[in-house]
Amino acid sequence: MPMHSAALLDDLRETALALADAARPETLRYFRQPALAAENKAAGGFDPVTEGDRAAERAMREVLARRRPDDGIMGEEYGNVHGRSGLTWVLDPIDGTRAYISGTPSWGVLVAVRDDDGPIMGLVDQPYTGERFFGGPGEAWLDSPAGRSILATRGTETLDRAILFTTFPEIGTETERHAFEAVRDRVMLTRYGLDCYAYGLLALGQIDLVIEAGLNAYDIQGPMAVVQAAGGVVTDWHGGPAHDGGTVLAAANTAIHRAALEVLVR
Amino acid sequence: MPMHSAALLDDLRETALALADAARPETLRYFRQPALAAENKAAGGFDPVTEGDRAAERAMREVLARRRPDDGIMGEEYGNVHGRSGLTWVLDPIDGTRAYISGTPSWGVLVAVRDDDGPIMGLVDQPYTGERFFGGPGEAWLDSPAGRSILATRGTETLDRAILFTTFPEIGTETERHAFEAVRDRVMLTRYGLDCYAYGLLALGQIDLVIEAGLNAYDIQGPMAVVQAAGGVVTDWHGGPAHDGGTVLAAANTAIHRAALEVLVR
Repeated sequence: MPMHSAALLDDLRETALALADAARPETLRYFRQPALAAENKAAGGFDPVTEGDRAAERAMREVLARRRPDDGIMGEEYGNVHGRSGLTWVLDPIDGTRAYISGTPSWGVLVAVRDDDGPIMGLVDQPYTGERFFGGPGEAWLDSPAGRSILATRGTETLDRAILFTTFPEIGTETERHAFEAVRDRVMLTRYGLDCYAYGLLALGQIDLVIEAGLNAYDIQGPMAVVQAAGGVVTDWHGGPAHDGGTVLAAANTAIHRAALEVLVR
Repeated sequence: MPMHSAALLDDLRETALALADAARPETLRYFRQPALAAENKAAGGFDPVTEGDRAAERAMREVLARRRPDDGIMGEEYGNVHGRSGLTWVLDPIDGTRAYISGTPSWGVLVAVRDDDGPIMGLVDQPYTGERFFGGPGEAWLDSPAGRSILATRGTETLDRAILFTTFPEIGTETERHAFEAVRDRVMLTRYGLDCYAYGLLALGQIDLVIEAGLNAYDIQGPMAVVQAAGGVVTDWHGGPAHDGGTVLAAANTAIHRAALEVLVR
């Protein structure tokens, strides 16, 4: 990764926080409201998008137009803008729209800024609980109504002591699901349903593994930046880069990452 | 259900709220702390209990000894006390201990007070988010940091428009799991992992069905009181009483309850 100046990193951090601040009221305006209507984006299947998604992404794009007009944008709802700075903002206004339409506070606003090598910094923001997980060069923290705490992953080294999260049990293709289930059968505890919030818990040192498949780049770059800054390891299921999406193995440390990877690649 | 005087109901409500108040700091003292250790209560399998569970139940029993010494107690961690009043307090200090040890704010403190016919009133308290779902005769509300809102279930009438929650996909016995999966295959969306918080979302009008199996009496009486007071229907999978545990079908209204029951009993 090329070195970025401290002044640039400060500006990127302030911009990332301004993006999350802008998205919060837009997502909360529709959350748990009877008028919230989910549209189905998918031709086959169920891929809901709400006015909350769109309003939050528009608000974030306005912030970028003002603060960082030369950077590129990759956003879930409004597509890509090519930039001139070599930096691109990766935005998912509501990751976990199914949680959002169900009233569950496990969805999040995802923001990352990347260069050619991948995400430089990123955040996962949960507007309803007021929790913001942030990770970047030299810093990883959670801001919540109770104050700021430092994020640091934990030291679990073996699968039989590990807590694993994934969003839903019908993960990936059939082959992928069997690989996932092989890990699930070896861990102490598997939990479902948390969307991006699970990466926050991993960074917080509460859990040990998040394993998912079928992700998009905008689903993973914010969480990945947070987990890596907190000491975790994030790759795809073959140990390669995960920031362009696909399969993801996020782990608390190199030992538990290696243990899970050995089972996944079998 | 026998009529209870307004004065008695007031005292029961105040006692229920005092119980939840007493449990909150005890559960939060250990939540997301590195020192939290889970013991395994189950001879086979994984049934964690923490010092948070025990401290919260002790604090609640102290409140009852002071305020309602003649009532009985059924508590998850410290067993049963027979009373002389005909009323029994049903306490689960931490429902969702697996969520608790994972750092997920979907566990809850469950309180109900019952007579011979079942729960009279009850609550689901989520100490970390500060959300308290309460239901009793003539009242159903959610208190949260944002204020008080009225709980009312919603009017979804058909399974193909319904959102279904359950705690984990490996539900009940094999026969029970097949029955559950038959409903799952007919609904719009199935979500996992929320423990008692799902009943709060049902009462809030956010989701339509919660289907579970293998529950204990202390797992269901608090949530049941909240859902019923908000307009929902709670039975076992045969349409009979659910308050002694076992299988539970909690539904937003009689129409969606009937639709799910027809599939479950097939």
